[in-house]
Amino acid sequence: MEKIDEHKSFGGWQQRHTHASKVCGCDMTFSLYLPPAAETAIVPVVYWLSGLTCTDENFPNKAGAQEIAADLGIAIVAPDTSPRGDDIADDAAYDLGQGAGFYVNATAAPWSRHYQMYDYVTHELPQVLAEGFADQLDLAREAIAGHSMGGHGALVIGLRNPDRFAAISAFSAICAPSAVSWGEKAFSTYLGDDKQAWLDYDATALMHAANNPKALPPIRLEQGLADGFLDEQLAPEQLEAAARQTGARLEVNRRKGYDHSYFFIASFIEDHLRFLARHLGA
Amino acid sequence: MEKIDEHKSFGGWQQRHTHASKVCGCDMTFSLYLPPAAETAIVPVVYWLSGLTCTDENFPNKAGAQEIAADLGIAIVAPDTSPRGDDIADDAAYDLGQGAGFYVNATAAPWSRHYQMYDYVTHELPQVLAEGFADQLDLAREAIAGHSMGGHGALVIGLRNPDRFAAISAFSAICAPSAVSWGEKAFSTYLGDDKQAWLDYDATALMHAANNPKALPPIRLEQGLADGFLDEQLAPEQLEAAARQTGARLEVNRRKGYDHSYFFIASFIEDHLRFLARHLGA
Repeated sequence: MEKIDEHKSFGGWQQRHTHASKVCGCDMTFSLYLPPAAETAIVPVVYWLSGLTCTDENFPNKAGAQEIAADLGIAIVAPDTSPRGDDIADDAAYDLGQGAGFYVNATAAPWSRHYQMYDYVTHELPQVLAEGFADQLDLAREAIAGHSMGGHGALVIGLRNPDRFAAISAFSAICAPSAVSWGEKAFSTYLGDDKQAWLDYDATALMHAANNPKALPPIRLEQGLADGFLDEQLAPEQLEAAARQTGARLEVNRRKGYDHSYFFIASFIEDHLRFLARHLGA
Repeated sequence: MEKIDEHKSFGGWQQRHTHASKVCGCDMTFSLYLPPAAETAIVPVVYWLSGLTCTDENFPNKAGAQEIAADLGIAIVAPDTSPRGDDIADDAAYDLGQGAGFYVNATAAPWSRHYQMYDYVTHELPQVLAEGFADQLDLAREAIAGHSMGGHGALVIGLRNPDRFAAISAFSAICAPSAVSWGEKAFSTYLGDDKQAWLDYDATALMHAANNPKALPPIRLEQGLADGFLDEQLAPEQLEAAARQTGARLEVNRRKGYDHSYFFIASFIEDHLRFLARHLGA
């Protein structure tokens, strides 16, 4: 692992690290905010998963989260949104290929070779963090968050690993990807046409299928009502219906006038980090 | 004037506007944050001048200032850093031409035709704002701020117009441009070789030359001690010496570990906006 960038930020450090990923078969880069508290103790970890076209840098540059993370004493890890490289499968569209990994383990060629983002985020990255930051990060206290495609990723990873993640935060999330065009395009490409296989990556389906829905991590979902993708792609009402039917814990906050941008995220990230910190015991 | 972008942000609006600039002879774009208070009253205006390579978008995207501006009830106007366009003089270097206007009125060819950023920021932009936002902005209450080249711009414009600007905030500012290579390159190019003409755009020289230094706007200067440009380009000690000799009001805060980036700005922008707001009576 190599530290490729570092800036002091609100008394802590905003860093970027690159490492060889076995799971993705390429070098992967992530951003890490270490709060001041990490200088003297291990701190809980929040994963932030970004949306389509983003890299690991959008969140640290635009969300304004460092001040709150410093105050709460939590670290924030922002991985990239896909494998990257000249020799890695790609597509000219913004919603497929590099920058659009959708946090799945691809099974269809040619994507299956590198596009293993579910395993990367869920298993390999935490292991890399545990080894590289044993004195700073408490990997026994994890929460997960994300935006749009990354909100989908946070919901899926959190709901499939309820014993690991203390809580889930999602902004403008793709809540029922099997039923919307972004998800249909990505899942049919990465996973093939067997729609049964898609359900492992569909938050609404996962909530319906859970053995013990009331024990799923609590979810806070923030949704702007001026979001141009809301009607076609996000379907928060499907996740709400699943929560009502199953008793899973879900709070949805709809915000008048807010859109799909980082200006929306910045406006409500403090509420979400405080929600996650409360469930992390931070 | 045309509104080209708008996002709700902390209850207010982060906007971008384009207008035909007579002074610069081209279309100019600026960003504007309107706090919630501007819906029912006119609010004071803070100008933010950005540094080399920046546009009007860096500050609204990266500084995390909207929450504080919303809280204080102040608007923030971020102009571009130069005239722009295919038919406008430029240079391949990052520190000259488009993105590097240095907030001067150029007198040397070919720059003098469009590079009139001092007059644009000081006179034309406020007039455009007064006409376009008569119900939102109180142009009788102005303060000015900036970073690096923009810190230089804020100091120069504030010191040359002490009756207009309530206070000046500067981050990592070029405090004595006549004496450093960034300033020598820009001033010799835009203003010619007569160094006397440079002094109208040199904050340290302006402070020394002021008729009534104690009546100059109070200045807050923030400087990171891990800033890679500090030793060669910024010279805060020269402005400090001028303030000591003249009695001008200057507070310099040196911050260990902080660099030249927006992560530094974000970490201390709240202190600066509260300082400006106090002097604006906001």
